[in-house]
Amino acid sequence: MRLSAQSDPNRQARRSPSVPNSRQLHSGRMFVHAISEYLPDRVVDNAYFGQLTGKPAEWFERLTGIRTRRRASAHENATTMAVEAALRLATVRPELIAAVDLVIGSSYTPWDTVGTIAHHVQRKLELDGIRALYLSTACSSFLNSLEIAWAFSAIGESTGSLIVCAEHNSGFSVDDDLMSGHLWGDGAAAVLVSTSPYPAAQFEVIDVRSAAFANAGHGPGGVFLEPRGRGLQMPHGKDVFALACRHMQAMGIALLEANGLSLADVALLVPHQANMRIIERVAASLGIKAPRIAETVTTLGNTGSASIPITMSRYVNTLREGDVVLMVAFGGGYSAGAALLRRL
Amino acid sequence: MRLSAQSDPNRQARRSPSVPNSRQLHSGRMFVHAISEYLPDRVVDNAYFGQLTGKPAEWFERLTGIRTRRRASAHENATTMAVEAALRLATVRPELIAAVDLVIGSSYTPWDTVGTIAHHVQRKLELDGIRALYLSTACSSFLNSLEIAWAFSAIGESTGSLIVCAEHNSGFSVDDDLMSGHLWGDGAAAVLVSTSPYPAAQFEVIDVRSAAFANAGHGPGGVFLEPRGRGLQMPHGKDVFALACRHMQAMGIALLEANGLSLADVALLVPHQANMRIIERVAASLGIKAPRIAETVTTLGNTGSASIPITMSRYVNTLREGDVVLMVAFGGGYSAGAALLRRL
Repeated sequence: MRLSAQSDPNRQARRSPSVPNSRQLHSGRMFVHAISEYLPDRVVDNAYFGQLTGKPAEWFERLTGIRTRRRASAHENATTMAVEAALRLATVRPELIAAVDLVIGSSYTPWDTVGTIAHHVQRKLELDGIRALYLSTACSSFLNSLEIAWAFSAIGESTGSLIVCAEHNSGFSVDDDLMSGHLWGDGAAAVLVSTSPYPAAQFEVIDVRSAAFANAGHGPGGVFLEPRGRGLQMPHGKDVFALACRHMQAMGIALLEANGLSLADVALLVPHQANMRIIERVAASLGIKAPRIAETVTTLGNTGSASIPITMSRYVNTLREGDVVLMVAFGGGYSAGAALLRRL
Repeated sequence: MRLSAQSDPNRQARRSPSVPNSRQLHSGRMFVHAISEYLPDRVVDNAYFGQLTGKPAEWFERLTGIRTRRRASAHENATTMAVEAALRLATVRPELIAAVDLVIGSSYTPWDTVGTIAHHVQRKLELDGIRALYLSTACSSFLNSLEIAWAFSAIGESTGSLIVCAEHNSGFSVDDDLMSGHLWGDGAAAVLVSTSPYPAAQFEVIDVRSAAFANAGHGPGGVFLEPRGRGLQMPHGKDVFALACRHMQAMGIALLEANGLSLADVALLVPHQANMRIIERVAASLGIKAPRIAETVTTLGNTGSASIPITMSRYVNTLREGDVVLMVAFGGGYSAGAALLRRL
């Protein structure tokens, strides 16, 4: 969905009051005001996986680029990490948090599927009578959440959203599984979105799109997480790798073209952080070179739905006014998405 | 969000092509074309819970009105039941299924949180390049899904949605837990939604709204489902009961008022099927009497997010053209919602 078309006559539109029988629709604009992250303290290196599996520690880094990941402690889970990330935003932007009318919580590694992340965040931040929902499209969840936040704002049903992504991968992964046990990191991020750029937005969201490709390749069998079954596993890593490269490239290019932009306009590529080899392949296919490639996977592993916002948060201060950021994701499901942001 | 305001100038608007820089927004309309259900064969009666707990079988019915529930077999789960419900719609409305561009899968009892219900349904129905997402707001998930389907249609990003709700409660509940073990039933429903009434829509959606109340009472601690922890439990049933009665009534009345309707206009109340005593209390507080109250809880138990669409599907043929249906839900989280539909 297109968010900020330059010649869009509705560009300056603001939320209209909710008047029965005359609800005014507008395309609106959407701004990112702040991004926070929460990472657990414990660091797990490749020596740990080497000891478990008999592989040399270097094998893991060669395969994926990952050197370390963070792991939740015994008293942490997706809910506690999500709440911590949200509280950090409440500290830096209390006035915007108070105006939030929609909380979207994302996780494929939930501690509680009924009293969800979104509900715990609502309660902790004392947000009364708002909308709250929990969703997952695995590693593209942040982009789906952004899309839903925009859809609600575009129809005048939301002016401020809080998107919280949290993954407790280590609660479900299998450490001695050589296929994927070593990939996963734990962590959370929170993103504050508003239809207004005031007082000090960091980014304008230019456009965001999602798509699902469960009908391709091994589809939902490529990566799975059975909470009461086999946990988190990736039996078809090669299939995931090939489709991730193809669709992240294609969705990125399509979104740029739809917005009259080219690859040369991209100041920073923020890909989903699944594996450094996928990131390198996608960047090469797009002709984007370092230092225009954002990465956290080498130190944090695959932090699932939290990976794009965590990574973005660490590059905010490297960008100048007007710089365009391209986010691309592909992951379990198979789900994909892309977003374009402009640094303000 | 208001869906079909009679004086809305955009009422006849249809999806506009996606033209960069001139995306046209419209309020659109939304229609329900078909609802299917899938229920596992096995029936569990109160004698089973009586034997487990030492309570007389009559005790369970007196408390909740529930006499029987369905239970998934060992080879069934939320994904298989969701796919079965979706396939039933594909049989009766193949041309509309082929036009679906958004699948929303809801469940708080997922078999797989990465390769979700939505993705398995996409794959089984061979829907290429569409949007697919999985969400949960527990027992109000169907209403949240309807709201999201409409938001995407209102901004021109979707013309046909498939909402699939499936709960495998028995995979997570604790049978000898006297607080809630006996409440739960398994089952699934699929609902086909379109922006067009053709060829033969059953309902027009007049309006739908959701809200979360996690800041009230015990909030997300009132009902929880920890997949790798304590499973599905309801430690604060009285709190849930009181807040469910209050918010289902309030949301129903608010939605009627916002649409210029009164309780006398309601031909059928379709409440979330948690417990017959809650349903009776809500109906009494709204002044709605039998046979204007739809129920399946006495024979199917609490089927979670599937309860409203399963129940609706069984009453379609009792309604006449122009009849107004009021759906109200409150459940774990605490999440709530209401919807108004008109029989065509």
